[in-house]
Amino acid sequence: MKIHIVGTGLIGGSFAVGLRKVFPEVEIAGSDLNEEHLEKAQELRIIDHAEKLEEVAQADVVILAVPVDVAKKVAVKVLDHAGANTLVFDAGSTKAGLCEAISGHQNRRNFLAAHPIAGTEFSGPTAVVEDLFRNKTMIICEVEKTAFKLQERALEIFQKLGMRIRYMDPVSHDRHIAYVSHLSHISSFMLGKTVLQKEENEKDIFDLAGSGFASTVRLAKSSPAMWTPIFQQNKENILEILEEYIANLTTFRDLIRNEDFKEVFLEMERTNHIKTILNGIK
Amino acid sequence: MKIHIVGTGLIGGSFAVGLRKVFPEVEIAGSDLNEEHLEKAQELRIIDHAEKLEEVAQADVVILAVPVDVAKKVAVKVLDHAGANTLVFDAGSTKAGLCEAISGHQNRRNFLAAHPIAGTEFSGPTAVVEDLFRNKTMIICEVEKTAFKLQERALEIFQKLGMRIRYMDPVSHDRHIAYVSHLSHISSFMLGKTVLQKEENEKDIFDLAGSGFASTVRLAKSSPAMWTPIFQQNKENILEILEEYIANLTTFRDLIRNEDFKEVFLEMERTNHIKTILNGIK
Repeated sequence: MKIHIVGTGLIGGSFAVGLRKVFPEVEIAGSDLNEEHLEKAQELRIIDHAEKLEEVAQADVVILAVPVDVAKKVAVKVLDHAGANTLVFDAGSTKAGLCEAISGHQNRRNFLAAHPIAGTEFSGPTAVVEDLFRNKTMIICEVEKTAFKLQERALEIFQKLGMRIRYMDPVSHDRHIAYVSHLSHISSFMLGKTVLQKEENEKDIFDLAGSGFASTVRLAKSSPAMWTPIFQQNKENILEILEEYIANLTTFRDLIRNEDFKEVFLEMERTNHIKTILNGIK
Repeated sequence: MKIHIVGTGLIGGSFAVGLRKVFPEVEIAGSDLNEEHLEKAQELRIIDHAEKLEEVAQADVVILAVPVDVAKKVAVKVLDHAGANTLVFDAGSTKAGLCEAISGHQNRRNFLAAHPIAGTEFSGPTAVVEDLFRNKTMIICEVEKTAFKLQERALEIFQKLGMRIRYMDPVSHDRHIAYVSHLSHISSFMLGKTVLQKEENEKDIFDLAGSGFASTVRLAKSSPAMWTPIFQQNKENILEILEEYIANLTTFRDLIRNEDFKEVFLEMERTNHIKTILNGIK
């Protein structure tokens, strides 16, 4: 099997090392607009060699692991050059815009719109994690628009990587992911900003921060280049949920201000059952 | 050494098992307003036996590990009954109110105001963690108000548990801890509330949540009984930082609404250096 990975960072690189583990005979080519990443990915033997995007016709699988604004353009270009038997799938955190961008392409049936719910707050080839996708969810959108035998190849790959599959339409995907992923990143970035502003002159105060702060602010380490186009493409859903988050924080502030601590207690108690819902997510 | 633990939950119980490991000959008594916790703590051999608060005169060390509203009252009562050589320390997340409450007590020199930066989102004796305090920070306030030989005993205990010590005044403590701990809990509780509201009818959507959401919402599992009095006692500091958090979120929302994605990128990039500051916190 020959695979071409577009974007040799955390996600693309983790696909490469994960696939090499389960398909030892695989040949992995890669391309990246970032020359440094491309070199590093070869140096670390994440990919076997660099290759131009125009050469993807020979590949059995092309994986797009680039920021979602780039993905829309690259998807069209890769489909332009795809062979009849080439499966192309992406890994982006927004799906509606991408599916729209390729909807009329003559090679649409070579494409599978995918979103692995996996990642870390780090980026680039040095952040690669071999088992990043094991026991994680792969969301697949518009599966019916992909050729049967390429659906089959994709499922085999995802199953070998240890992923569970969920099917959704792209519009629902973007809405729900705004709630359970995109909002978390904004809350974390702004938490980091707020505390950094306050402690600008007393950085040693962070010595006092415990695991709770580290946990809530972890996502503020994420890549702005990756997240800006996600917020741009999923603007409407994000604005809606962010508005509600701000409203809930404002209500909670008012309860504290008005010393209604009975209601402060109840607000927390009503949210506590997230324990049972989150059971199993790590 | 004889120790009495007031409150046999996560913090008190973890002190008990941690201390038993480093002082194998220790005798540990306990008391708890929650009869169930007290029984469970004996059943799990976290404490050796139950004892009334009035009997603490015989103890070398009394540890107060109760919600901060209860701690203010219990501290006075325990000091009333403390022997001449009894060290009493607390573990609460607010310090100004407590230090004020005991400031005029005739046995003030038996007391050490302490705050271990350690915990989990779980509570009760079943949540006890043996090495909870290892490599964690212990903040000590108004150390000069504690008798020398009792300071010495406290330091020996904290060092044997593997803690590093930081000294602060109670007013600064409450301000900084509002920033690096209390705000995180509010941001997490309200994040949990917001997403639960949206997904009330589609709970299986949480299947799609990844480690990012789990991380930012983890603290929403915390005990309302513990956190309500913290928010009450640290009201002013919390209102101030919560106000800034809401303002930063509102600015970020406006940037997205106005499609100023260049500035959205910069906002995140400017916060990214929290990576280096958080280095080492787990």
